[in-house]
Amino acid sequence: MKAPKYKVIIDYIKEQITNGIWPVGSRLPSQRDLAKQFGVNRSTIVTALDELAADGLVEGKLGMGTVVINNTWTLMRSAPPVNWNEQVGLGTHQASLSTVQAINLAEADENLIQLSKGELSKDLFPLEEMRAVLTKVGQELEPFGYEDPKGNPLLREAIAKYLNQKGIMVHASSILVVSGALQALHLISIGLLERESTVFLESPSYLYSLSTFQSAGMKLHGIPMDKEGIIPEMIEASHHSRKSVLYCHPNFHNPTGTLMGEKRRQQLLKLAESAQLPIIEDDVYGDLWLDSPPPSPIKSHDRHGNVLYLGSLSKSLNPGLRIGWIAGPEAVIDRLADLKMQTDYGSSSLSQRAAAEWLVSGLYEKHLLKVRKQLKVRRNAALEALEKHLSSFAEWDRPAGGFFIWVKMNSDISLPDLYRKALANGVLINPGRIYATQKMQHFRLSFANAPVEDIQKGIAILESLIEDC
Amino acid sequence: MKAPKYKVIIDYIKEQITNGIWPVGSRLPSQRDLAKQFGVNRSTIVTALDELAADGLVEGKLGMGTVVINNTWTLMRSAPPVNWNEQVGLGTHQASLSTVQAINLAEADENLIQLSKGELSKDLFPLEEMRAVLTKVGQELEPFGYEDPKGNPLLREAIAKYLNQKGIMVHASSILVVSGALQALHLISIGLLERESTVFLESPSYLYSLSTFQSAGMKLHGIPMDKEGIIPEMIEASHHSRKSVLYCHPNFHNPTGTLMGEKRRQQLLKLAESAQLPIIEDDVYGDLWLDSPPPSPIKSHDRHGNVLYLGSLSKSLNPGLRIGWIAGPEAVIDRLADLKMQTDYGSSSLSQRAAAEWLVSGLYEKHLLKVRKQLKVRRNAALEALEKHLSSFAEWDRPAGGFFIWVKMNSDISLPDLYRKALANGVLINPGRIYATQKMQHFRLSFANAPVEDIQKGIAILESLIEDC
Ligand SMILES: Cc1ncc(COP(=O)(O)O)c(C=O)c1O
Ligand SMILES: Cc1ncc(COP(=O)(O)O)c(C=O)c1O
Repeated sequence: MKAPKYKVIIDYIKEQITNGIWPVGSRLPSQRDLAKQFGVNRSTIVTALDELAADGLVEGKLGMGTVVINNTWTLMRSAPPVNWNEQVGLGTHQASLSTVQAINLAEADENLIQLSKGELSKDLFPLEEMRAVLTKVGQELEPFGYEDPKGNPLLREAIAKYLNQKGIMVHASSILVVSGALQALHLISIGLLERESTVFLESPSYLYSLSTFQSAGMKLHGIPMDKEGIIPEMIEASHHSRKSVLYCHPNFHNPTGTLMGEKRRQQLLKLAESAQLPIIEDDVYGDLWLDSPPPSPIKSHDRHGNVLYLGSLSKSLNPGLRIGWIAGPEAVIDRLADLKMQTDYGSSSLSQRAAAEWLVSGLYEKHLLKVRKQLKVRRNAALEALEKHLSSFAEWDRPAGGFFIWVKMNSDISLPDLYRKALANGVLINPGRIYATQKMQHFRLSFANAPVEDIQKGIAILESLIEDC
Repeated sequence: MKAPKYKVIIDYIKEQITNGIWPVGSRLPSQRDLAKQFGVNRSTIVTALDELAADGLVEGKLGMGTVVINNTWTLMRSAPPVNWNEQVGLGTHQASLSTVQAINLAEADENLIQLSKGELSKDLFPLEEMRAVLTKVGQELEPFGYEDPKGNPLLREAIAKYLNQKGIMVHASSILVVSGALQALHLISIGLLERESTVFLESPSYLYSLSTFQSAGMKLHGIPMDKEGIIPEMIEASHHSRKSVLYCHPNFHNPTGTLMGEKRRQQLLKLAESAQLPIIEDDVYGDLWLDSPPPSPIKSHDRHGNVLYLGSLSKSLNPGLRIGWIAGPEAVIDRLADLKMQTDYGSSSLSQRAAAEWLVSGLYEKHLLKVRKQLKVRRNAALEALEKHLSSFAEWDRPAGGFFIWVKMNSDISLPDLYRKALANGVLINPGRIYATQKMQHFRLSFANAPVEDIQKGIAILESLIEDC
C-alpha cells in the first residue's frame, strides 16, 4: 500500500518546515510549481495545503501565496507541544563538528576525488572471497540468537590465535568482540573512565576518538609527536592525577602515518607501570605495513595488564562488517562486555560468523598480501605526485604503512582556503585542524581510496590551486 | 606459532589471580597437580612459577608451597601500578544488577528449562530461509564499506514501506537503522535526554530500558498499569517539569503481556501534545499478535512529531541480526544518526542487507504467519499448564500476543525462595522485582523459548516446589 500522493506532499512540506529549510514566515513555492515538482494536478496540492492549514502550519495570505506560520515544534495546541528539537542540544553527547559533518557528506559524493576517505578503495574489495565466505557461513548455519556477551566463541578463538601471532598471548576469555574499534573507544569511555579524567593522546589524533572521549566528559590532553611517535617525556611532565589514561596508535598513526619505534614502545610501557597510566593501544592499521613488519605491539610486552589493546577488520578487510576487538585483563573485559550488552546486546551474528570464517580459513592472510601490494603502489604514486607537484609548497614524511600522508604546507598558504577551493574543484582533503586545532598548516591525504590516476590528478589540481593564489 | 607451554601456564595463573579466583594470600595447587592439569613435566611448571616469582606475583613459602603475594593490579614496581580494576567502578555507566547478571548466565545454560528467555525458540529459527537470504545477499553483493549514517538506503526504503502498512507514513529519510531497539534507547538516552531529566515508564518495565536510562543519568518514574496499559492520569498527576519523556511499549508489554487499548493510545498522544511530553513508543512485539491485530501504533496518529517509534527484527525474526529502527522527525533522526556514527559507525552491512532481503522478498511476512501459529500453541499450552498446576497459588492474565505471561503468586509464597529453588531444580524464571522493585510477588514466564513439553514440565515443577514449602 503506497501513501496517497497528497500525503506524500504533506510529508514533504512538513519536513521542509521541520528542518528549517522553510522557516516560519517564509513563502512556499507556488501551487503551480509544487504541482509540477510532484507531477500532480493543482487540486492535489490544494488538498495538501488545506490539511496543512487545518493543522495550523501554513496560511494562505493575500498577494503572498502560502506562508509558513508555525513549525511542528512551535505549533500550539492547548499548550506548547513537545520540543524534541530543543532536546537535540541537551543530551550528554555532543554533535560532531560542522566541518566534520560536511566532510562526511562530501565523502559520500562519488563525483569528488576522494583524498579524504580512510577506507580501502572499492577496487580492493574482495568480492569473490566475500561471496565464498557468505556461502560457507550459509551452509554451516545453525540457528542463532543473542550471542554470548563477549561475542561468538569461534570468532574469539580465531582472534586469540591471530593475536598470539603478534605476540599477544591472550585467551578467548580475555577478548571482547565489538562493532569496530570506535565502539571499543565508546565503551571504554562510558564504562571505565571517570568524567573529568584526563585522556592523553597524540596531537593530532584520530578524529572520532576526540569526540568520543569528549562526549563522555573526558578532558583531552594532546601530546606532541616526533618521527618516532608520541613523546613520553611530554606525558611525564604533565601527568599529575591518578585518573588519567593514554590513548595512542603506534602503528601508522591517523592522521600522520607515523610508526612508533621499538624503544618508544618500551618507554611508554615503562611509563604506564611507573606512573600508573593505563594505555589504550589502538592497532587498527597494524596489518597494513608496506615496507617491513612493525615492531610488536606494546601489549605483547605487557606483563601486568596495563594495556587494553584494540583491533579491527575495518581498515585491512572491510569496515562494513563492523567487527573489532578489545583484548585486556579479563575483569576489564567482563565489565566492558556487560556494558556492551546494555548498549546493543552484542554484534551481528552474521558479521561475527563471516569474520571468523575470514580468519580461520586463511583468506584474511591472503587478502592482506594483496592489499599490501596494492597499497604500496598507491602510496608510491602519491609520494611521486607530491614530489612532482607540491615539493616547493609543502613537506611530508614517507609513511611506512597505513593509509595516510600528513602534508605540511608552507606558512604563506592558507589551508582553509585551499580546502574550500579544492572542494569547489572536485577534490576532497581533510584539513589538519579537525585533528588538532593548532595543526592549521597541515592536511591529511589518504592514498587508500581514490584510483591511482585520481590521486595523481587530485594532487595536480592542488598545485594549480596554490599557484592561482 | 603457538605460545610455548610455560607461557600458557603463566597466563592461566595470572588470570586466576587477576580474577580473584586465587586472591592474595592463597596457595597455588601443587606443582604435581599443575603438571597433571596441563599435561607437562614438573620442570615446565617450575619455569612458569619462576617467572611469576620474578614478576613478584607469587613466592615459594617453606612448608606452604607457592603462595600468591600480589595480583596484577596491586603489584608494585617503582610506584603502584595502574588499576583498571578500580576504574571498573568509575565509568558513567553502571553494571547490571547482580541478579540480572546471574540470570544472563543461567540463560546460556542449555540444561535448564528456559521459562526466562525473551527469545524465540530455536525450533522457530527459519534455517532454510536464512540460508536462502544469505545466498541471495552473496549473489547480489557489490563492494560495500562504511554505510550511510542513517543506514543502508534499500533497507530504509523497505522499513518505510513496512511502517506505512502500519499506518506510519514516514519516508526513508526519517528512519535510522540501529543495532536493535536497545541501541535505539541507548542513543536516545545519551543524545536527546538531559541528565537528571525524568523518564516516565510503565511499572514494571523492560529490564534493560531501566539500566540504559539510569546509566545515562535519567531519573525513572514508574507509572502503574491496569489491564489497558499505563494509566495516563497517573502521569498527569506527577508531570511537572518540561524535561520529561514517556517510554512505553503498548503492544504485548514486557514483562506483563498487556495490550494497550485504542482509547488509551489516543489519550497518551493527547497528553504528549497538551503536556509537552515526548513519547518513545517501543513496538518490538507488535507483529506477534496471536488473536487479532493490535490497534495502530500511537505514532500512526502523531501529526506533530511528538512520538519516536522503535521497532526491531529481534523478537519476530531473530535477535542475532541486530537490526532495529527508529522513526521520527527528521531533525531528531539526523541527530541520532550523527551520534550513531560516533558510537559505532553504523550497523553491519551484512545484517542490513539480509534484513532488507527478508522484508523486500516477503519472506518476513510469511515467517510471521508461521511464528504466530506456533507461538499461539505455546501460549495456550502454557496457560493450560498454569491452570492445571498453579491456579490455587497464583493468578495471571491471558496475553493476546508477545512472549510473556505475568504471574502473580499468592502473598504467602516467597518468590525469592521459589526462584532459587526453581533454579536448583533446573527451571529458570524471572523474578518480578528485577522489573520493578515492588513487584515482589510476580514472576515473568516466557512461553517463547522452551519446547512445549518443557514449558509444561517446568510449570509442574513449580507446583511441586510450592507444595514443598
Ligand atoms: C585510529 C583509528 N581507530 C579506530 C578507527 C575506527 O575503526 P572501526 O570502528 O571501523 O574499527 C579508525 C577509523 O578511522 C581509526 O583511524
Ligand atoms: C520491550 C523491549 N524493547 C527492546 C528490546 C530490545 O530488543 P533488540 O534486540 O531489538 O535490541 C527488548 C528485548 O528484550 C524488549 O523486550
